Amino acid sequence: MKLKTAPELQTAHGFNTQEPLTLAGLRGQVVLLETFQMLCPGCVSHALPQARRVAEHFTAHGVSVIGLHSVFEHHDAQGSREALSAFLHEYRIGFPVAIDAPAREGALPRTMAAYAMQGTPTSVLIDRAGRIRRQSFGPVTDLVLGAAIGALLNEPETPATACTPEGCTVEQ
Amino acid sequence: MKLKTAPELQTAHGFNTQEPLTLAGLRGQVVLLETFQMLCPGCVSHALPQARRVAEHFTAHGVSVIGLHSVFEHHDAQGSREALSAFLHEYRIGFPVAIDAPAREGALPRTMAAYAMQGTPTSVLIDRAGRIRRQSFGPVTDLVLGAAIGALLNEPETPATACTPEGCTVEQ
Amino acid sequence: MKLKTAPELQTAHGFNTQEPLTLAGLRGQVVLLETFQMLCPGCVSHALPQARRVAEHFTAHGVSVIGLHSVFEHHDAQGSREALSAFLHEYRIGFPVAIDAPAREGALPRTMAAYAMQGTPTSVLIDRAGRIRRQSFGPVTDLVLGAAIGALLNEPETPATACTPEGCTVEQ
Amino acid sequence: MKLKTAPELQTAHGFNTQEPLTLAGLRGQVVLLETFQMLCPGCVSHALPQARRVAEHFTAHGVSVIGLHSVFEHHDAQGSREALSAFLHEYRIGFPVAIDAPAREGALPRTMAAYAMQGTPTSVLIDRAGRIRRQSFGPVTDLVLGAAIGALLNEPETPATACTPEGCTVEQ
Repeated sequence: MKLKTAPELQTAHGFNTQEPLTLAGLRGQVVLLETFQMLCPGCVSHALPQARRVAEHFTAHGVSVIGLHSVFEHHDAQGSREALSAFLHEYRIGFPVAIDAPAREGALPRTMAAYAMQGTPTSVLIDRAGRIRRQSFGPVTDLVLGAAIGALLNEPETPATACTPEGCTVEQ
Repeated sequence: MKLKTAPELQTAHGFNTQEPLTLAGLRGQVVLLETFQMLCPGCVSHALPQARRVAEHFTAHGVSVIGLHSVFEHHDAQGSREALSAFLHEYRIGFPVAIDAPAREGALPRTMAAYAMQGTPTSVLIDRAGRIRRQSFGPVTDLVLGAAIGALLNEPETPATACTPEGCTVEQ
Repeated sequence: MKLKTAPELQTAHGFNTQEPLTLAGLRGQVVLLETFQMLCPGCVSHALPQARRVAEHFTAHGVSVIGLHSVFEHHDAQGSREALSAFLHEYRIGFPVAIDAPAREGALPRTMAAYAMQGTPTSVLIDRAGRIRRQSFGPVTDLVLGAAIGALLNEPETPATACTPEGCTVEQ
Repeated sequence: MKLKTAPELQTAHGFNTQEPLTLAGLRGQVVLLETFQMLCPGCVSHALPQARRVAEHFTAHGVSVIGLHSVFEHHDAQGSREALSAFLHEYRIGFPVAIDAPAREGALPRTMAAYAMQGTPTSVLIDRAGRIRRQSFGPVTDLVLGAAIGALLNEPETPATACTPEGCTVEQ
């Protein structure tokens, strides 16, 4: 199967990070990109706590968890940097979070559009070579997400070739 | 014990209600007044779902659940009518909610101050005669809150007198 | 409404108690009688933990929680004193528990039959005067059970008469 | 690292299976061996529900979940075939379960001893080549267990050799 390279993030501002958040800077890591809105109940009750658990368990093993605030509704209520800053503070979210770059009025934020996401929460798993391996809208169980992470962590750093005793082929 | 009359609400705007929310208008009902902030994690994960459960179970039995949005921090993020409106919509909160009237800058909102609340969430139980019977800051278990509600529902409508076969005395 | 006096317990053996468990001995207390089987999943996951929470919160306020092991199936697996003893030990159940007296083969245990219970778990609330005030088969929410307990705790010790300023009538 | 071959199961009776349960018969599958006792609260509330979730999610992907009833205490209460049969029926456990073969009095059951288990629940993950890859006593989170399963599922069927573009080496 030909795997799709994960489109680079297009962001407007970052929190919990010194430098702009880019996927290029995370190459070599397994990345969990958690897309959310602060006023999305499923994001607050399920996806963000799960992302925090992933960060706790797997950061030491080569996983980077990053949040992406992709506001596509209620811009007055949740669209400002101040609103997100207060939210991240109150919910004690310690992993890096970026604001998805807004597009023209009425359009989806730019990263959300590039990934053709259907809404929030959407979680995207990106392998060490920067390719999308799993993208899902809505709740995912810890078992299934864990299995996907474990599978990617068990791949060699350069998975562009798949090797057997008989030889190596390009692209899985 | 001399019971304290619940101070009247001082509010700036109401949602899910046609008329201004007042305790006077709820006399005869047991009232659960749930004070919250939309960016308070304990309010969102515990107190508001509990208030909703109380409304589901006890509205038909004479309990009125009302929410009070008492913003004392992060005014930029959660202080606007638009922000609260979006929050109530997304979290599908159907009971009446009012914005606690702001005081001068740096001071607690007016109702919060009148009740000497320590923070959010604070839940207040008010009896049919309009008196405070329970006020607590932080999480309360369903068993304990249920017991307090059940006790008030089991009181006669005019509890100002307590009667025994021997006679009636004023004030419990 | 004419309330039914709770039939006296008929038991074969007691745990966590020095004397035989009787309702007569608990007159003046609000009693939660929790009927269960050790191999009933709903009893183990829901009813017994709830009974334990009731004991923790309300024992000091005049509520007695007692368990009744009413075995009506799988007698080989759960019908012995040893099996129940091991269960109570492992699950750290500290409130008094009695074995419901077995009847002739194929019949329901005697107390279960006297209360016309439909299965396990069944929880029965008995007021201070020894009358059944609530009996329910299957799960009950903490809010609803709490409200029922709170209502009974808020009744005078001798609820056989209901008094108003106008006078007292016998039986609520 | 030299990996240990999982000792073969030594069992006395099987449920939900036509043939005696053996690891040899499951070669080529990733195996989750869940060791439990029916009167162990952590087994009932956590480990067995988790094993059931693993079976639901991963049976179709090459994982076999098997239970092992390793009774080392309360033999009177939980040591009989009838007791376990009733338990499996009531808890609707559909995956294969075997009774760990009892040893001489006072000794641990034979499989439990062969794995040097410390108690119940103990979960063991065995790879497609029949080697122990993870053994843990007590609760494991779904994320961590999922990651371990995902890693094993992502290994080639014959993991005895590890290959890179440069060549293959024996034993990971």
